[in-house]
Formats: sequence, structure tokens, C-alpha cells
Amino acid sequence: MRIAKALEEAAAQRLDGLLITPGPDLAYFTGLRPPITERLTLLVLRVGHDPYLIVPELEKPHDLAMEVRTWQDGDDPYQLTQGRFAISDSAWALQVLNLQRKNPGLELIPMTDVLPMLRAVKDAGEIALLAAAGAAADAAFEQIRTVRFAGRTEREVARDLARFLVDNGHSQVDFTIVGSGPNGADPHHEIGDRIIRDGDMVVLDFGGLKDGYGSDMTRTVHVGAPTSEEQEVHDIVRAAQQVGFDAVREGVECQEIDRVARQIIEDAGFGEFFIHRTGHGIGLEVHEPPYLVRGETSPLVPGMCFSIEPGIYLPGRFGVRIEDIVTVTADGGRRLNNSDRSLRTVV
Amino acid sequence: MRIAKALEEAAAQRLDGLLITPGPDLAYFTGLRPPITERLTLLVLRVGHDPYLIVPELEKPHDLAMEVRTWQDGDDPYQLTQGRFAISDSAWALQVLNLQRKNPGLELIPMTDVLPMLRAVKDAGEIALLAAAGAAADAAFEQIRTVRFAGRTEREVARDLARFLVDNGHSQVDFTIVGSGPNGADPHHEIGDRIIRDGDMVVLDFGGLKDGYGSDMTRTVHVGAPTSEEQEVHDIVRAAQQVGFDAVREGVECQEIDRVARQIIEDAGFGEFFIHRTGHGIGLEVHEPPYLVRGETSPLVPGMCFSIEPGIYLPGRFGVRIEDIVTVTADGGRRLNNSDRSLRTVV
Repeated sequence: MRIAKALEEAAAQRLDGLLITPGPDLAYFTGLRPPITERLTLLVLRVGHDPYLIVPELEKPHDLAMEVRTWQDGDDPYQLTQGRFAISDSAWALQVLNLQRKNPGLELIPMTDVLPMLRAVKDAGEIALLAAAGAAADAAFEQIRTVRFAGRTEREVARDLARFLVDNGHSQVDFTIVGSGPNGADPHHEIGDRIIRDGDMVVLDFGGLKDGYGSDMTRTVHVGAPTSEEQEVHDIVRAAQQVGFDAVREGVECQEIDRVARQIIEDAGFGEFFIHRTGHGIGLEVHEPPYLVRGETSPLVPGMCFSIEPGIYLPGRFGVRIEDIVTVTADGGRRLNNSDRSLRTVV
Repeated sequence: MRIAKALEEAAAQRLDGLLITPGPDLAYFTGLRPPITERLTLLVLRVGHDPYLIVPELEKPHDLAMEVRTWQDGDDPYQLTQGRFAISDSAWALQVLNLQRKNPGLELIPMTDVLPMLRAVKDAGEIALLAAAGAAADAAFEQIRTVRFAGRTEREVARDLARFLVDNGHSQVDFTIVGSGPNGADPHHEIGDRIIRDGDMVVLDFGGLKDGYGSDMTRTVHVGAPTSEEQEVHDIVRAAQQVGFDAVREGVECQEIDRVARQIIEDAGFGEFFIHRTGHGIGLEVHEPPYLVRGETSPLVPGMCFSIEPGIYLPGRFGVRIEDIVTVTADGGRRLNNSDRSLRTVV
């Protein structure tokens, strides 16, 4: 079903087919998640032909409903085909270069250059898994609000957060950003040994995989009572996040969500301090298309799932970011994170 | 120091330089471990020139002792250079194909095709980290020997094993293979819901990363007392592992370790049941060169670190594998795993 639809889209792009390597694309089409190594595993989807999987003999899957062609040491699994094929973005250079060398008539194109939205529209089962991952992240946030922040390092709080994600069913923790005080003003700060103090804003951005699908949420909390300026900045970000959410509707361009959220922050005079795009898709990967960024004119389609995460970053002082995963429905957006978005205090 | 040495080796291979992407190669040269994404981060090492790092503006590292060239949305970071360059094996197809398109005079070669041993010889600091990871794996094995096996699923035991690795300082668990009874006869079986029974052989193969360096060890245990046949098969594998270890010496070819270990198993009449190579290198990755496999004529060099892991797999019945990480010294091999290699029983 997914394969047939992908091949239809491939044909519409004048492709002869798709070459799919281990990672999210292969999981999407086959459910297989083999280790990603130097040994070639490749799903060959050719327009007008049956699909088949090339795989090392020792890693042959036991019950896959398609032809499997195994290879062993000494075989050359790279001699393949010719024509115009899109290949998974994350296929290894080792394999791309060997495919090119062994198949002079093969033209390779990065998947996102030609079929960026291949996995962007989720089916009901996928949305249920994303909703469950989101609920687990919500639960982890409720737990982290009860731990002590003041006097402990970012690293200690991050470790608590990772444990709460696992306790709530995550098999993999991808990031647990704890950005306290001035560290929160660097959106790419992850974790440090800074000791969190009373009076700090703390950005908590965390996520990973639960049952194969991603979570990613951000709340900003305050140690003790915030100042009126801190409260104001938080209110602006919260309003921007809400306006972005309210704009979600079938047919709206991706960049429109970014535009309306950014407008709120610009109108409040903080435009220069919102220094990243408003969101990214999520599914089998924690970051994937669609991107909510200026220039992305693809229309929203029911089933798309992405983050909406505006922020304000005041260098040397503090940062605020609020992030929910949102899915597009026939009636607008539906949040997959539902934790309170007001500025909660911690101790 | 590492960069200078790598460029010397590159020049000897008539390369103009090396292109290094996020992953183990970039960690090796810079200590940086940025997230691996679609956004280009590239260390450019050019023979006769100073190194520089191309990186998205938002991910600019704070204190890197080399030139950093940042790019932003709207820039084209791919227009680069010409000449003959080796590129990290795991660089993304997206980036390889864009580099080719934007740089007609650039010839790309996979790193392992031209400099397979780039990271194979470890320095003293790296060996200390691998030894610490090995000691942590040993400690996890001592702990898993004390848990109950009979009546529990492979998955439950695997979960214990993962917890013990983390308790002993692993930041990442890469695999916890629990192959009980007939499942042990499939070297790529990972974990299932089979309930372990009294009388089972159980292959335990586990590892991950501690402080950035890998662990990987295997012991085979028995639930209750083994039969004489089970004990005999285990003794043969243990002897093969020992003979492989004893053959480790500067200047010996990699394939020689495979040959002598395999000879023991063949002489005992089980040659057809040892169905994989004898070992693989380990360092920033859990699998990397050198490979101890027939045809690999590279000589062992002091500082190389690799697994020695012969096995016997009797289809439908049981499997045995014993694996230690070993480093080459001026005086022969030194084991980085030191848990008892005799057939231990569990309950």
C-alpha cells in the first residue's frame, strides 16, 4: 500500500524508482530496522516491477512479504540497475559511491530533492503512536516539575528527565536539553554543569522514540517567582505558539505557520531574538519534513505531524521556548502535547 | 597531531584531502559530536592547507582550535573545492550527491576504500577508555549471572543487562543479545519473547558506549548443569578464542587470527558451524576496521583494538560464542575483558 503509493509519486516525478536504505525509510516500507552498517541492505522499488530486498545472507529477515535477494562475502551486491532513482537521504557515502561506480547508467537523486513529503502524511496508526509518544512526554514533564532544580546541575535534572521518559515507555531518549539562565538563550545548548539557581528561567526540551515514533516537547519553567519582564516574554512566546496552532488548516502553506507566529514576536519588539524556524515534521524520525520555515510553500495536508516551537533568546540573560507536536485534521490542528503552557514555577 | 598524520597518509594515497562528516570521524579529529542531520557540517582537511570546519551558524562550536566557516539558510554551503578527496563512509547521500552536483571537479572516494585504518591504531588515552568500557561490560556480566533466567523471557533478561550496562557507566546501550536454546544458533538473533528454560544454553552478547568508546563482549552461560556435549562444544570455542588471542602479535596479518581460531573449530569437526568472521575493530564505533577475516592482509600494529569472537551454531539446537576485546601491545595481545571464560551456570 505504502509502496504502491510511493511508486505512483515516483512515476509522477519521472523517476524509474526508489532505492531505500536502513533507517526510517526502510522501517516505513517494511517494518525492518536492521543495524546500519557498511554491509549493503537495499530495498529496490522499481516502477512497474515487484519490490525486492537486497540483504546480507546472515541478516536475512524471516517473514518478509516480498522477494529477498541475499549476498555473501565475495559477491558484488552493488551491480544493480540503470535509470533515474531517488535514494534515501541518509544512505551512506560508501554505498552511494559504490552504486555509482558499478552502475554507469544509474542516476541518483536525494530523496528530499524530489519526494520530500514521502513520509510526511501519517495514517491513523502512525498518529496514534505519535499521540502516545506525546502523552508520555507530557507525563515526563509532570514528573520533572516535582523535582528540585535550585542547587542542582543541569546534568542532574537532565538525567531525571531521561529516566522519566524511559519510565513512560520511551525506548530511546534522543535529547534532554536543560538550558538554565543564560544557557537558555542558546537554542542549541544541550546540558552543562551549570548549577541552577533560584530566579532562573529553565528551558526543558526533550524527546525520543516510543514504539518507533518520536516525541519532542518544550516547556520553560521558572525557579521561584518570575519577574514581570520574564512573565511578559513568556506570554509573548505562548501567544505566538497559540497563533501558530490556530493557523493550522488543510491547504495552508507550511511557511504561513512560521509567518504568523513570527509576526506576534516581531510586533512585540523581539523579532531579532527569534532565531530559528518555527517547526519540523516528526514521525519515525524526530526531525523530518515538512519544515515550517519561510520559503516552504507545500500545503498542509490532514495527517501531517510537526512541532510548533517559537522562542525568544536574550543573549547572556535567558531564553523561552514552548513546543507542542500538532497534527493536521480536517477541522484544523490537534495538539499531541497537552501539558499546561503557562509559566509554571519549580523549586 | 591526528590531522597531520591523516594528511600524511592521504598524500601517500595521492589524495588532495579528506572530507569528514559528523559521526566517529569528526569526533576523532575535533571531539565534536553534533547531531547528524540534513544540514551540512563538514571538516575540510586539505593537504598543504589549514583545516576548517563548515557548520550551520546556529551550531557553531564555541572553542574549536581551527577556522570555522558558518552558513545560514539561503547560503550554499556545498560549493567547495575540486580534486580527489576521501569522504567519511557514513556521510549522507543527500550531501554526497549535492557535493558532486555543485563541484564538477571533485572526485569522491569512500574513506575505507583508500584509508581503512585511519582510526584503527589507538593512542594510550583511547586504550584507557576502551579498557574502562570493557571493565564496565565485565561488571555487567558479573551482575547478570546473579539474576534468574529460567521462566523469564529473553526480553526480560535483556532489559536487566541494559540496566547493568547503564549502572556501570554506559551512556548508550547498542545491543543486548540474549539467544536462548535454539535462538542461540542464529548469531543475528537479538531478543525475543521465548521463555528461557532449565537446560538451555544462552548466548549473551552486549555492548554500547561508555565515555564515547565502545564495549562488546560475549559469554555463553547454561541454565543448570550442561550435558557433556554442551560442555564439549563450549570447550572447543573457548580453545579457539584462546588460540586466536595467543596469535596476536605485531606484524601478524589480521586474517591469521581468523585462520588459527577457525582451524581449532574445523579440527574438532565443527567447521561448517562457524559461520562468521572472527572479529572486528572497536573504538568510537562498536564495529570498525580492522576486520579479522580471510583476505585481510593488513598487519597488526600496537594500539589496534578488536574483538576475537569465534562461535559454533548448531541449527535448531543451541549456539556458543565467546568474545573479548583485545589490544595489540609490543609484547602480544592484552585482553580488555577479563570475565571468566569457562561455562558458568545460571539459575
